[in-house]
Amino acid sequence: MSQRDTVVTFVSDADIEAHVTLNDIVPAIEQAFIDLDAGNSEVFDVVRGRGGGDDHFFAIKSGRAGSIPAIGLKAGSYAPGNHKLGLQAHTSTTMLIDDITGRPFAVVEANYLNGIRTAATNALATRCLAKADAKTLGVFGIGAQAIFETCAVASVRPIQRVIACARSTAQQGAFADAIRKQLNLDVEFADARTTCENADVLVTVTPSRAPLFSREWVRPGTHISAMGADNVGKQELEVELVAQSKLWVDLPSQAVAIGETQHAFRAGRITLAQLEQQTLGRLLSRPELQGHHPDAITVFDSSGIAIQDIAAAYAALQVVTKRKR
Amino acid sequence: MSQRDTVVTFVSDADIEAHVTLNDIVPAIEQAFIDLDAGNSEVFDVVRGRGGGDDHFFAIKSGRAGSIPAIGLKAGSYAPGNHKLGLQAHTSTTMLIDDITGRPFAVVEANYLNGIRTAATNALATRCLAKADAKTLGVFGIGAQAIFETCAVASVRPIQRVIACARSTAQQGAFADAIRKQLNLDVEFADARTTCENADVLVTVTPSRAPLFSREWVRPGTHISAMGADNVGKQELEVELVAQSKLWVDLPSQAVAIGETQHAFRAGRITLAQLEQQTLGRLLSRPELQGHHPDAITVFDSSGIAIQDIAAAYAALQVVTKRKR
Repeated sequence: MSQRDTVVTFVSDADIEAHVTLNDIVPAIEQAFIDLDAGNSEVFDVVRGRGGGDDHFFAIKSGRAGSIPAIGLKAGSYAPGNHKLGLQAHTSTTMLIDDITGRPFAVVEANYLNGIRTAATNALATRCLAKADAKTLGVFGIGAQAIFETCAVASVRPIQRVIACARSTAQQGAFADAIRKQLNLDVEFADARTTCENADVLVTVTPSRAPLFSREWVRPGTHISAMGADNVGKQELEVELVAQSKLWVDLPSQAVAIGETQHAFRAGRITLAQLEQQTLGRLLSRPELQGHHPDAITVFDSSGIAIQDIAAAYAALQVVTKRKR
Repeated sequence: MSQRDTVVTFVSDADIEAHVTLNDIVPAIEQAFIDLDAGNSEVFDVVRGRGGGDDHFFAIKSGRAGSIPAIGLKAGSYAPGNHKLGLQAHTSTTMLIDDITGRPFAVVEANYLNGIRTAATNALATRCLAKADAKTLGVFGIGAQAIFETCAVASVRPIQRVIACARSTAQQGAFADAIRKQLNLDVEFADARTTCENADVLVTVTPSRAPLFSREWVRPGTHISAMGADNVGKQELEVELVAQSKLWVDLPSQAVAIGETQHAFRAGRITLAQLEQQTLGRLLSRPELQGHHPDAITVFDSSGIAIQDIAAAYAALQVVTKRKR
């Protein structure tokens, strides 16, 4: 009745923060999306539940990521009461399970990693779609994730100017300090219109439930990575901006349910069949689909899927194991 | 961007086998079912997927178990190719997550534990429903789980005779040895009819997809714990036996989908509304519902739910932590 001794490696946030960079994760995420397009990755149904505390939301995202020999699941909680305890509201943990035997081999804290994996996906979309010499990045939102996203865009385009727009000034100092430290750039803080009108690339990374700016302010040729919407009711862009853009999504079924695309979909402006041809996996698999459109606005709608978590956790496990030796 | 240091305790199969007994788990399972009846426990949707190997099935069961301060999830795989590698086909791992903060605090191997938690649930049903002086247990199936189930029934009734019926003779020796060692009883092997006609309590614990015996052979007053059916198409009892019995189930929605009850439900002989009044949680919560029916056959349909896994993992964590000190 006994199994062979199991070795389950635990990788902490601190391990990942010390040893893992964006560039360690990007190729793994890229391969996972290519595998998804080729039918070699699978995303299982998302579980949604509630924790015991007020407003404690819980979810499990799971699946298989093609070339990676693992089934993975990410358990994620959002418990806003944590702030009172000096803890972050979000907690994510990824378990990796051997694809063949079904035996778990790693438990990876995915709090810091979640930031990198989301930004890595933005880097991939921006690399495919933004103007080659994009110099000005406009960022909506200046929280912790906005720092990851700014660095991600700067890793694939020669960004020289960062303009940030945020409702509150509270985090301006922390955001500016981080960007100065990481990119050696001074952040300019501006209103929504100024941010849009000057940007070659726009990134929205907020918990907004209404459009952040008028689509009239966005110049043709702008690429927008819409990173914020990941639940019903969340929205950062105007419906017509999404509907008239050259749109790409991570997972069509999820984009229309909880992504930025949900609003244009519900308005009947976008069909699921159409989106099946507009996935990031397809874009990454077919170089002929990539490239900047000077007369159009491109949008990447990121809602966040399990294969990103699996690919990121597996890559982080390899890197940490190697570099900690 | 860092979290406080996390402590995730790992509890291995070997820890549990060395330190945890059926009686450590029974009260936890009982409380979890009582909480479920009181509306204090929740079972989230089950995830089903496939692994990479042939016939590798994967599932995640998750939920919250009332009095226990945890959200829990059990990732389970069935990979029959494992036998070639000298590994068990089933692998289960439970993660426990703080109910308030959402932070994981334990990863518990649930292979040996799964056997105990299922048997503990059988013990609870049998304690409520079987004849007080039940002396003869009939067991269909003689695999590893049958050993747990036999011990569970013997823990709540004065069993003096164990009759076992199995299609193959291959495991007879191992089963008989285990029962002799654990209960000091000599197992009699018999055909299905003899097993039924002599039993005060019957336990079915097989992967069968068709009835194991004729309902005509079962004496009035017999209690049956049907432990095997946990997927579409599995079946151990005749439809009319289930339909005419005093039936109890762990979770109505799951019983009609994948439990023994699925067949009587599909035949229109049992309704979901009716089953809502016939749960193990209700039975355990209301002593007036408990007791032996000399003229009737009682059936407990166990399909296996997340709150059992959470309660068992949490209890095992407490016991192992205490006894290993």
